[in-house]
Amino acid sequence: MQQIPILKVGRCLLVSIQFDMHDKLAMALQDDLTQKLVETGARGVMIDISALDLVDSFIGRMLSNIAAIARVLDAQTVVVGMRPQVAITLVELGLTLPGIQTALDVDRGLALINKLMDEPEGDRGARGAH
Amino acid sequence: MQQIPILKVGRCLLVSIQFDMHDKLAMALQDDLTQKLVETGARGVMIDISALDLVDSFIGRMLSNIAAIARVLDAQTVVVGMRPQVAITLVELGLTLPGIQTALDVDRGLALINKLMDEPEGDRGARGAH
Repeated sequence: MQQIPILKVGRCLLVSIQFDMHDKLAMALQDDLTQKLVETGARGVMIDISALDLVDSFIGRMLSNIAAIARVLDAQTVVVGMRPQVAITLVELGLTLPGIQTALDVDRGLALINKLMDEPEGDRGARGAH
Repeated sequence: MQQIPILKVGRCLLVSIQFDMHDKLAMALQDDLTQKLVETGARGVMIDISALDLVDSFIGRMLSNIAAIARVLDAQTVVVGMRPQVAITLVELGLTLPGIQTALDVDRGLALINKLMDEPEGDRGARGAH
């Protein structure tokens, strides 16, 4: 079965999603990521979606689940590389990606994660959370 | 057509190869990477092959081509995340990946690229080059 590589970059894990996700792959990614978070003690998860043409409610839920799991393992999740068209469609579909922070690219994502790690827990307000 | 995302991490470009390459995709990756090297002025290219089960002569040649192009654009290429079985098969096939440096993971690859950038041109000896 296809497996999505999880790369450790500094104190973060980086995942680049390059093809359409289906149920099994999403579950496998969630499991692998959780495993790797515990193994490495990483403090952040960056998910690159620059290859995706569309983020539908399935992908949105997967991203939210990953963010929720990461949060209980004391890691921040940042989605990077969203295409302009994807952003427009997300809003049109009424999807808010609850609990997920976004950044324009990997460098800004790393900077955001580093900033979030230095903030006390109470100050963290996830963009789009409700 | 499928496109492989090229992520900028610091002064490096990071490419994660997640599926079997074919001619057109390899050419497109080469073109995109060259374009992005010039656009960003990146000093290093990291190619993650942790998802690949096999590196055959086609992939080997593609990696060597990318390394050669990067070199004339003053960037170092490092291949990271090679699986143990891939290393064994490479040696059995007699493939030496000329001009390509390797590192175990992304963090070590970044460290290697940073080290190579600080060395004067004359001292650079690509591992596996002949």
